Amino acid sequence: MYKVFDPRQLLHAPDVELHNGRLIPHVDRPARAQVIAERLGPFGPAEDFGREPILAVHTPEYVDFLEGAWRLWRDSGRSGDAIGYTWPVVKRRPLQLDRIDAQLGRFSYDAGTPIAEGTWAAAYWGAQTAVTAIQPLLSGSVRTAFALCRPPGHHAGPDYLGGYCYLNNAAIAARAATLAGRSRVAVLDVDYHHGNGTQDIFYEAKDVFFASIHGDPATEYPFYWGHHDERGAGEGEGFTLNLPLPRETTLAPYLNALDLALEAIAGFDAQLLVVSFGADTYEADPISHFRIATSDYPRIARQIAQLRLPTLIVMEGGYAVEALSENVGSFLSGF
Amino acid sequence: MYKVFDPRQLLHAPDVELHNGRLIPHVDRPARAQVIAERLGPFGPAEDFGREPILAVHTPEYVDFLEGAWRLWRDSGRSGDAIGYTWPVVKRRPLQLDRIDAQLGRFSYDAGTPIAEGTWAAAYWGAQTAVTAIQPLLSGSVRTAFALCRPPGHHAGPDYLGGYCYLNNAAIAARAATLAGRSRVAVLDVDYHHGNGTQDIFYEAKDVFFASIHGDPATEYPFYWGHHDERGAGEGEGFTLNLPLPRETTLAPYLNALDLALEAIAGFDAQLLVVSFGADTYEADPISHFRIATSDYPRIARQIAQLRLPTLIVMEGGYAVEALSENVGSFLSGF
Repeated sequence: MYKVFDPRQLLHAPDVELHNGRLIPHVDRPARAQVIAERLGPFGPAEDFGREPILAVHTPEYVDFLEGAWRLWRDSGRSGDAIGYTWPVVKRRPLQLDRIDAQLGRFSYDAGTPIAEGTWAAAYWGAQTAVTAIQPLLSGSVRTAFALCRPPGHHAGPDYLGGYCYLNNAAIAARAATLAGRSRVAVLDVDYHHGNGTQDIFYEAKDVFFASIHGDPATEYPFYWGHHDERGAGEGEGFTLNLPLPRETTLAPYLNALDLALEAIAGFDAQLLVVSFGADTYEADPISHFRIATSDYPRIARQIAQLRLPTLIVMEGGYAVEALSENVGSFLSGF
Repeated sequence: MYKVFDPRQLLHAPDVELHNGRLIPHVDRPARAQVIAERLGPFGPAEDFGREPILAVHTPEYVDFLEGAWRLWRDSGRSGDAIGYTWPVVKRRPLQLDRIDAQLGRFSYDAGTPIAEGTWAAAYWGAQTAVTAIQPLLSGSVRTAFALCRPPGHHAGPDYLGGYCYLNNAAIAARAATLAGRSRVAVLDVDYHHGNGTQDIFYEAKDVFFASIHGDPATEYPFYWGHHDERGAGEGEGFTLNLPLPRETTLAPYLNALDLALEAIAGFDAQLLVVSFGADTYEADPISHFRIATSDYPRIARQIAQLRLPTLIVMEGGYAVEALSENVGSFLSGF
């Protein structure tokens, strides 16, 4: 029997892998090939046929990615090996899979959003918090309400979790408002990250307008949603507005984008506003990159308040915990 | 301003998250809500509106999953929180994203397949190893060849990595054979796990038949592929055959399934056979669950050899390193 082995294959030696929710030593050790080569030889070496036979099977984009990925990962400031954590899940085959491993993938799009023992209860009461807070807006007894929700919600779609989000508190409140008779509701998302879950939930709806100002997904999580050309579909075409902004955006350009969003919401003739508020636009947020100061938030809030709509503010992200209550208080003070 | 907060939201307290290829303390700490509740109160409590407002936004399947996931995870023998690691990526929006984070998701379907410094070189030479090994089969100078490839390849699709696989060595060799003039080539995948990458690559092809015997994806990785009703599409309809078998399968039922696969390959009138061989069907494999003994492999190999086709054996999985060369040698001895 003709046998071929090339020792350059041993160069692949990843350190760890994600397994059972932990990082364990990577199971595909170089030793796997080495023991076979040593004991079942002799083996002839590989010839170099170049990329042509590879490109007959794989796409050029994929092959280029694979060749350059480790370098790109290191150049972006990371150590260790390149490990994915978020996936562009767009369409799923409707499989009924009982195994928890399969369900975790089926109902999520990232690996950074664990389900802990108390997650369901917390998410459930987050949703109830938002629905509770919108009631007096619907009855007309107050003009502004704040739902202190955590975990956040705007990354959770109709059938997926991700981005620390499980139930979409803002979307649940907005839908509760249309079901209570408001024929046009707007959701304004001013979290640093695009509210992909909210967008997906209302993408084909004509009764809920979704506007979002966020870090450009060309460089910012969640990457696969929030690009300016996403404008809604079907009956919802034109009722989604994405205003991505670059890293380091300061108050002035932020307010310009906000003007555009508020103009669109006014043009939609919304009867009620839900604001997905993330304090991660804050200049010192540990995982975000805008340059909004604590003292800027009342200005942003006052501009939103000029819509003069019954307004529910739903808490989303914001991870500079030491400044969080001040930033939130600063924002709420503008209403 | 009316303010609502429910302290049951603090029950969500996941331990860690995957971030920059490491596990770090989860960023969405309960303190995020606590500091706001303490400093910006008073807050009213949430009322319980039940599931109705939640189900107006999320699918019932998703809500049931979310409620039960942590318990299912623990019941399946895991500790810690439930963290997904594989995703049913079916269709992607063709976005051009430069950021490595986005590319890692775009070109993969799991979080257990890191790209290390030497990964590209190893995968490249794995592909060359397979192409080298098929040459004397194409020239007719040998009847059987063994390509000792590592990392394995059969989980890698046209544009994705996953399952420890980067370039699909078996598919690259099979395609090289059709490009060299063989009009009908068969790939027989006898790794423990379904060869989803190979299947995807040839799913609409009529010149490559793909047959796979593997652990039932209802319970086994990669879950989203390899179900018996996946039979190919378009011109390739009928040229994919999946024979999933339950955990604990022993030699006798395995050989029955193998008979069905070999019959289909003979009916296809294949001119050349590529065998994706994984030694992880072995009874003591640390991550798999069949009951094939070392002494069973010659029997399996002899049955395959009865096709009397020029045969390339490509190494795929097998993680019981101490028994690996014996298992591989045992399999090769049957040819």
